[in-house]
Amino acid sequence: MNEWELIARLTPGLATNASVVVAAGDDCAVLDLGLPGQFALFKTDAVVEGIHFASDAPPEKVGHKALARGLSDIAAMGGQPNSALVTLALPRPFDPARVERLYAGLNATAQRFNVALVGGETTTNPERMLLSVALLGTVEKERCVLRSGAQAGDALFVTGELGGSLSGRHLEFEPRIAEARWLTAHFAIHAMIDLSDGLAGDLRHLIHASKVGAELLASAIPVSRAAKLQARAESSAKTPLLAALTDGEDFELLFTVPPSVAVPLHDAWKKQFPQIRLNCIGKITAEPGLHLRDKQGVKPLTAHGYTHFAKS
Amino acid sequence: MNEWELIARLTPGLATNASVVVAAGDDCAVLDLGLPGQFALFKTDAVVEGIHFASDAPPEKVGHKALARGLSDIAAMGGQPNSALVTLALPRPFDPARVERLYAGLNATAQRFNVALVGGETTTNPERMLLSVALLGTVEKERCVLRSGAQAGDALFVTGELGGSLSGRHLEFEPRIAEARWLTAHFAIHAMIDLSDGLAGDLRHLIHASKVGAELLASAIPVSRAAKLQARAESSAKTPLLAALTDGEDFELLFTVPPSVAVPLHDAWKKQFPQIRLNCIGKITAEPGLHLRDKQGVKPLTAHGYTHFAKS
Repeated sequence: MNEWELIARLTPGLATNASVVVAAGDDCAVLDLGLPGQFALFKTDAVVEGIHFASDAPPEKVGHKALARGLSDIAAMGGQPNSALVTLALPRPFDPARVERLYAGLNATAQRFNVALVGGETTTNPERMLLSVALLGTVEKERCVLRSGAQAGDALFVTGELGGSLSGRHLEFEPRIAEARWLTAHFAIHAMIDLSDGLAGDLRHLIHASKVGAELLASAIPVSRAAKLQARAESSAKTPLLAALTDGEDFELLFTVPPSVAVPLHDAWKKQFPQIRLNCIGKITAEPGLHLRDKQGVKPLTAHGYTHFAKS
Repeated sequence: MNEWELIARLTPGLATNASVVVAAGDDCAVLDLGLPGQFALFKTDAVVEGIHFASDAPPEKVGHKALARGLSDIAAMGGQPNSALVTLALPRPFDPARVERLYAGLNATAQRFNVALVGGETTTNPERMLLSVALLGTVEKERCVLRSGAQAGDALFVTGELGGSLSGRHLEFEPRIAEARWLTAHFAIHAMIDLSDGLAGDLRHLIHASKVGAELLASAIPVSRAAKLQARAESSAKTPLLAALTDGEDFELLFTVPPSVAVPLHDAWKKQFPQIRLNCIGKITAEPGLHLRDKQGVKPLTAHGYTHFAKS
């Protein structure tokens, strides 16, 4: 049983109450606490030494990543982060200097995104460090974007470049908060998700939630330089396209808009964020399933994004 | 360096913003998100296999404890819990039946306290299970009780009985949500904390936050039957009084009220909660420090509550 099968078995029948707008299954939980005009967004994300970061990774970058992952989920809802709690499980003995450097990285990212670090706890995990961050955010009700809103015919966009993140970017990526806020302020975004499990895997989550299908255009998928270099350096590596489809930890935004919006959105983006690529990589289809169009035609896409359980 | 010293070194200078009412240092973080008349309460709490529960502990009880610990912190602020996210880090291989039983315990407690389980994640922690619960709650602004409000002359009360919790109660305790809600609805509670580190340790937190001292009356401290049995069974065990002062994991409420309120509160409590003991165990003093009064007179109390780092 893998992570997804386990979650699928556990989530039905979980306790709920009148404040729940969206429970498990989107990038964040969405709650109506009675905030005028707004929903609360609630998210936790954990990183584990040896799984999500190497033991010799610079602690500042580990702290950054631990917070930035959850911020990326807030971005994917169109929201603004407010505050965070940090659970730090430390091996024994622990190195206080390592913890201080980790917190310095966490804190710098928190300040940059106006997130208050309002506490948390330290505890013991004897064999390895584990860092879990809980995030609280808000979003205007009419700007809250779910995974489930994609419609047949929608254009499918992705920010940035994909693949090869584990060679370095996964510790340094910038969550796309400002970009998502700009998108929801100016355009009717039908559905959005952040790319943590790889384009193929996360697009599957989006079309599953929206009860639609998708067709990707192979030549339009933006492949990162890191993925290309890896493919060249290692004969056993994935092709660059497969890396872009399945590597994971890109933390870019994948979203859908009505086809009439595609061109004006793309033009406005280039003016607003000239340094960040935005690519239309395919379309949403009424027919279920995920397909890839390349020179040979259209074929079902079987490459999965990795599951966290299989990664290490 | 222990847990407290580390936290003291990390917390100054953490990122903050305009919504923060209370950051690190109380039972929960308190946030003003713009909810009319209310604050949001935000808390995380983690339990680790082999540290906070034994590997052979019934999984249902582990799930209960993981949620109930945070609920006890919400109670200590006078608040109502709203929703929770569950981070479950599983050893490899993991036993799906164990996880399902754990979730059954979590879910039953969530339903009893009207807490929505709105998601979370599973991840890998190869050597042992770790379970972290993030909680969101609310409290009317005028009923939010901090650790820092105790005043010289206040009467000091504790619910339930103390000590010996690790022999079983720590997996079964009921968070005192209803009791705290009743207290703040009817009386001016000056300060409150829940007992996780032991009466002596948590009272130190309370008087430190309030910049006061306290004098405990040894004969008034309610010692649990478990603590008495342990003292009798093991010659190396703590005395029952020392166990009640330092064992930890009692998850009872410790609070202070103006002295004029002490008798009417005690009388009303007995009618409202006849099955739960409430004891006046001492008073808040202007003189700093923690003292214990017994037949021999008044002496400084040096016994600390345990720190989590020293526990196992």
